[in-house]
Amino acid sequence: MEIIKQEKKQNDKQKFKFKIVHQSTKSKARVGIISTPHGNILTPAFVAVGTTGTIKALDNKIVEEIGIQLMFANTYHLLIQPGTQTIKNAGGIHKFIGRNRPIITDSGGFQIFSLAYGSVAQELKSKGQKNYKNSVIKITEDGVLFRSYRDGRPILLTPESSIAAQKEIGADIMIAFDELPPYHTKDQQLKQSLDRTHRWEKRSLDFHLKNKTNQALYAVLHGGINKKYRKLSCKYLSKLPFDGIAIGGSIGKNRDEMSELLKFLAPMLPEDKPHHLLGIGDIPSLIQTIPLGIDTFDSAHPTKCARHGLLFTKHGGLKILHSKNATNYSPPDPSCNCYTCRNYTAAYLHHLFKAHEIAGLTLATIHNLTFMTTFMEEIRNKILENKI
Amino acid sequence: MEIIKQEKKQNDKQKFKFKIVHQSTKSKARVGIISTPHGNILTPAFVAVGTTGTIKALDNKIVEEIGIQLMFANTYHLLIQPGTQTIKNAGGIHKFIGRNRPIITDSGGFQIFSLAYGSVAQELKSKGQKNYKNSVIKITEDGVLFRSYRDGRPILLTPESSIAAQKEIGADIMIAFDELPPYHTKDQQLKQSLDRTHRWEKRSLDFHLKNKTNQALYAVLHGGINKKYRKLSCKYLSKLPFDGIAIGGSIGKNRDEMSELLKFLAPMLPEDKPHHLLGIGDIPSLIQTIPLGIDTFDSAHPTKCARHGLLFTKHGGLKILHSKNATNYSPPDPSCNCYTCRNYTAAYLHHLFKAHEIAGLTLATIHNLTFMTTFMEEIRNKILENKI
Repeated sequence: MEIIKQEKKQNDKQKFKFKIVHQSTKSKARVGIISTPHGNILTPAFVAVGTTGTIKALDNKIVEEIGIQLMFANTYHLLIQPGTQTIKNAGGIHKFIGRNRPIITDSGGFQIFSLAYGSVAQELKSKGQKNYKNSVIKITEDGVLFRSYRDGRPILLTPESSIAAQKEIGADIMIAFDELPPYHTKDQQLKQSLDRTHRWEKRSLDFHLKNKTNQALYAVLHGGINKKYRKLSCKYLSKLPFDGIAIGGSIGKNRDEMSELLKFLAPMLPEDKPHHLLGIGDIPSLIQTIPLGIDTFDSAHPTKCARHGLLFTKHGGLKILHSKNATNYSPPDPSCNCYTCRNYTAAYLHHLFKAHEIAGLTLATIHNLTFMTTFMEEIRNKILENKI
Repeated sequence: MEIIKQEKKQNDKQKFKFKIVHQSTKSKARVGIISTPHGNILTPAFVAVGTTGTIKALDNKIVEEIGIQLMFANTYHLLIQPGTQTIKNAGGIHKFIGRNRPIITDSGGFQIFSLAYGSVAQELKSKGQKNYKNSVIKITEDGVLFRSYRDGRPILLTPESSIAAQKEIGADIMIAFDELPPYHTKDQQLKQSLDRTHRWEKRSLDFHLKNKTNQALYAVLHGGINKKYRKLSCKYLSKLPFDGIAIGGSIGKNRDEMSELLKFLAPMLPEDKPHHLLGIGDIPSLIQTIPLGIDTFDSAHPTKCARHGLLFTKHGGLKILHSKNATNYSPPDPSCNCYTCRNYTAAYLHHLFKAHEIAGLTLATIHNLTFMTTFMEEIRNKILENKI
């Protein structure tokens, strides 16, 4: 990886570019470098979620130290607090939050629709009830009118206003504005939604190209679990000059459905663009989809698990609150070299969680994110050796 | 301070010792060095409170980096969670919590009585109602029988069991077991309490000397706001071979009463022992009492203020949630060199507090504790220059 590291350094501070360093001979898995104005991302990469510009329980300098190459922030939340103008006035999100490495923002659509349709995870897996029915006031060809969860004021988000907001935020990578239909959507409605999403994404792109910055813009593939629509979406969006392709919407109610859909879809993705899988970041899914050529994954799963006291290890999750850890005077993972495992024992972390000390959340999060970065580095090495 | 720093290093890892480095010519203020098995403490020093062995929102390596020389942990809380045996089995509290610098524990009495008499601050200032009346079941000559706040089980704390617990914890400095009578206590009762406290402290000392470790033991002066009793307490406890003197109990309902009492009391304290003022740590009180010869102060005030978004600066407190900070793109305190002020702006901290991000609590706490250590260093320099 020495060559890659050198290249990583040289390419810092340049415009968006994607380069495949190595294509595995064993699968579609590849090692690549995404260059951005705030540095390079070696792929495959795990993308940590910092909804408000902050990964929960961590400050952004620690996040850099952990080696999180790309951080995901949510435009919807940033629109409402602190407001995109405040971020713009700070000189952009990197300066505002004190992170000097790449950042990606979504379009805001995901949150709007997930609030309307209930918990995203539930809905994507078809378990959801329609909650917050009144948060989305109206969906028209123009865009979505919704209510702020904070003060109830109506906000209109359109492809143009989403991209404008993302330009004010100033992340390295933006995502086109899309609609997120629920898992249980009839084909006719799904097709209508898909066509509108394509029009919205085209408008996002047009607005972006007319107001060019050194930011990149990713398309989002839709079509739910309907293969015909997925193919259509891939065909349409691949032709447009997006910088990368994200896979969004419902991709199945379980890992098997997801796997089947992605096996069908992945070979159609344009090879020369980075492939991002939205909202997926558990280890089994990564292992299943990296060989299909997925390059980046964002998920709040590792950080959420950490705050619930589940620490990742190569031998499965360590439930820190389990009584046997009360007197476990070894590091949470003796084979781990993270800040937490270097400095503290499982017994102390157990105590922190029992005593409801915030420091426990921080230390567990540091561990799980380090686990993810280490895991991805091993994955990259295996691809370089054609073992994946 | 170069000589002191050298001495600080040389004296690491030795037994308890107190040495006065400089006595101001202008007041009773002095610069000293308390040597402990886990390193030296330059005095006057602010002692941060880490009730459960953890300063809220910080991990202990950061606390070391901030330069907190001495950390206060509460025996009462540690007895209940994780239990002193768990700490002993870890090799003592330093190993258990991952702190390699000096630690002091209290006797447990303070928490028991403050739970019985209501909020400590309220009661000491005579504002309290008697809450948790049933938490103390019985006070006898032997000790205090109380209920665990966690599971209701009865726990008997005596001078001997308190010191035994503190020896299992293994802090560098222990505190003798005492009774904490409320502010509003009639003289006769106060005298009875004082006499019993003296007997308890003597028993604490006897038990300590019979089971000698390399830990130090401080006495606690009592007598409430009755000067006669305070003098009596000082006279009695000064003669016993305690390693230091703490001033405990109610010292007045406001800073003026405290100041008057301490002006009376401080000149009677044995000069060759360190003087600790329990539970006081606000800047005005430090400024008033350091010239009287107080060496160390423990208080949760700076960390509690931090978590409420009040950041200390030389020009007073900065209320981070104030709307003007939403677009304050300077560090919270431009003259401060702490981790928080070096890396983040007031606007970002404002955002973190508005968005209820834990990282805000951590960053504010780092700032306030750095403020305290910097402030105390300046105080020591002023004493060395006979300016205090």
